[in-house]
Amino acid sequence: MKKLINDVDDVLKEQLQGFGSAHKDLLSVHFDPTFVYRKDAPVKKKVALISGGGSGHEPLHNGYIGPGMLDAACPGEIFTSPTPDQMFEAAKKVDSGEGVLFIVKNYTGDVMNFEMAADMAHDEGIDVRNVIIDDDVAVKDSSFTAGRRGMGVTVLAEKICGAAADDGYDLDQLEALCKKVNRFGKSMGMALSACITPANGTPSFDLDENEMEIGIGIHGEPGAERMELKSADEITEMLVSGILDDENYTRKLHEWSTEEKDWIDVELTDEPIVKGDRVIAMVNSMGGTPISELYGVYSKMAQLLEASGIEIARSMVGHYITSLEMQGVSITLLKADDELLKYYDAPVNTPGWHK
Amino acid sequence: MKKLINDVDDVLKEQLQGFGSAHKDLLSVHFDPTFVYRKDAPVKKKVALISGGGSGHEPLHNGYIGPGMLDAACPGEIFTSPTPDQMFEAAKKVDSGEGVLFIVKNYTGDVMNFEMAADMAHDEGIDVRNVIIDDDVAVKDSSFTAGRRGMGVTVLAEKICGAAADDGYDLDQLEALCKKVNRFGKSMGMALSACITPANGTPSFDLDENEMEIGIGIHGEPGAERMELKSADEITEMLVSGILDDENYTRKLHEWSTEEKDWIDVELTDEPIVKGDRVIAMVNSMGGTPISELYGVYSKMAQLLEASGIEIARSMVGHYITSLEMQGVSITLLKADDELLKYYDAPVNTPGWHK
Repeated sequence: MKKLINDVDDVLKEQLQGFGSAHKDLLSVHFDPTFVYRKDAPVKKKVALISGGGSGHEPLHNGYIGPGMLDAACPGEIFTSPTPDQMFEAAKKVDSGEGVLFIVKNYTGDVMNFEMAADMAHDEGIDVRNVIIDDDVAVKDSSFTAGRRGMGVTVLAEKICGAAADDGYDLDQLEALCKKVNRFGKSMGMALSACITPANGTPSFDLDENEMEIGIGIHGEPGAERMELKSADEITEMLVSGILDDENYTRKLHEWSTEEKDWIDVELTDEPIVKGDRVIAMVNSMGGTPISELYGVYSKMAQLLEASGIEIARSMVGHYITSLEMQGVSITLLKADDELLKYYDAPVNTPGWHK
Repeated sequence: MKKLINDVDDVLKEQLQGFGSAHKDLLSVHFDPTFVYRKDAPVKKKVALISGGGSGHEPLHNGYIGPGMLDAACPGEIFTSPTPDQMFEAAKKVDSGEGVLFIVKNYTGDVMNFEMAADMAHDEGIDVRNVIIDDDVAVKDSSFTAGRRGMGVTVLAEKICGAAADDGYDLDQLEALCKKVNRFGKSMGMALSACITPANGTPSFDLDENEMEIGIGIHGEPGAERMELKSADEITEMLVSGILDDENYTRKLHEWSTEEKDWIDVELTDEPIVKGDRVIAMVNSMGGTPISELYGVYSKMAQLLEASGIEIARSMVGHYITSLEMQGVSITLLKADDELLKYYDAPVNTPGWHK
């Protein structure tokens, strides 16, 4: 295992110390329990946004803390869900009295632990809502998730909802906006290589020199399908058509009801992305794929979308949500209306956001 | 060779098309000869900044085109110098009449071709100055370079001089500022793995599972020393002490003299970084190393600098100047005064700059 680390047991702590030190003008790191928060939290008269999940997906989520995005993030160990006390303590730290929105990627452990944290916060009188992001069109169920997994739309939900919170959206409005972003956004990814967690020391799966995985997750889990390595154009076609062919996906979500003061099941149906739509388009490195290759993928994606009558309103190319040093790419498309574009374009100051 | 590419011969062209398409609000790509330029060039009453060099170091240089940084960049083939006609045509495109500063990394082919381009521009009546960046303390000579190589200080020279050009610095002042950045900045890098160019298809050198290279360049060339893989803390100590122990380096540069209308040899001596100094500190991924590992390196670097009485005034952690998918890290320290910090902090809008 070739990594820039010291003792395997200290990896996360040392990285978080470095993160806190590098960005000490903007944020602080709390240990035991572990969460990272805006230095100026709580921000008065603003709903607070908290996300989190297993580490290893940097810059997600810690890199998106700051004005215009998150108020706090709760990193678990690498590819391991954070515990409820992390989110509970973070919520107490950043709540200004306007309530807290939890943005949760759809992995079984994350969903359960964020829900437990919400219950703990409710008991303390903090109004918390959980919105699940499940945008991966490739995988309906996996060893990590019931239903679809959370991928690149998470980044856009954090950006857009963060800006709307700055603009005075209340908790009801932010919950609705975050669900809309999830309904309007879809992602699909692929890998050329697996990644290695420090704790394991060996690749999470093996791929031959001429093989690739389509429909990967972000935890080093194998993809939906293994196949012979294809050209960038062919791969891009598979990802774009996977997203555009995905129609009317409906999921049942566990959602907090303020009326019933309990969790209720609600159904949520996606909007398809169709001819005439504008989209925010993200081409994301899974970690080890260099930026230059992303632009090759972008080029083909732009041609395919133009041929489908879909306009790219905004572009993002780079490292947004990764799996350590995994080589591969994911594409995220978010159907964009004026509300989403307004908040996408709004000012932001975080270590990891860039366009 | 596992890469997201199509035909090897089309890699650069397709990637540049994607780059131009993704950032078409900001810049345009010209082919035959190849250069990328600010869409609004020439910018009136502003000295224009041009850089360039072999491709494969993204986001350098194309990603640093835009308000507050470069006016144009000239990408060569991967790890191959651009030809003089690229810089000449770019200079004609972006010169507003205030002249052009060429920021050139110290590789033999780059230096020669930028100098030829300057001669061609001089013949057309365009005032051009060349400033060489040679900040790599690890390697005095290599198969690519006479003298030191250009590394992370290039990024800072482009940022700081770009902002000063916006602020009205004339060509003499910008040339002096750029030389100061080079004199005040030092870098050192290391690799855990080599990279593979599409044209070669095999790694540029082989490293065993327990080996690393200290003092690498950014072209996939081997480093100054090969040794057993060490911990992140030990590696960081080697890089930081390599930079701090480097004192009074003097190089002879070929510089354009407006009085003599000819190239003259001038000597330039570095400033050492010493106790009491403030620095801008960059921890840079060579490409394949994930952001999280960079923060582990940052943590140790911050401890070492504090122990040396050196204050980190600004921090950069991420992908700034890379070698395709090479795994490794480089550290750059720039001794900072009020002038350098003012222009470091100035507004910028380019695809690749982030703090």
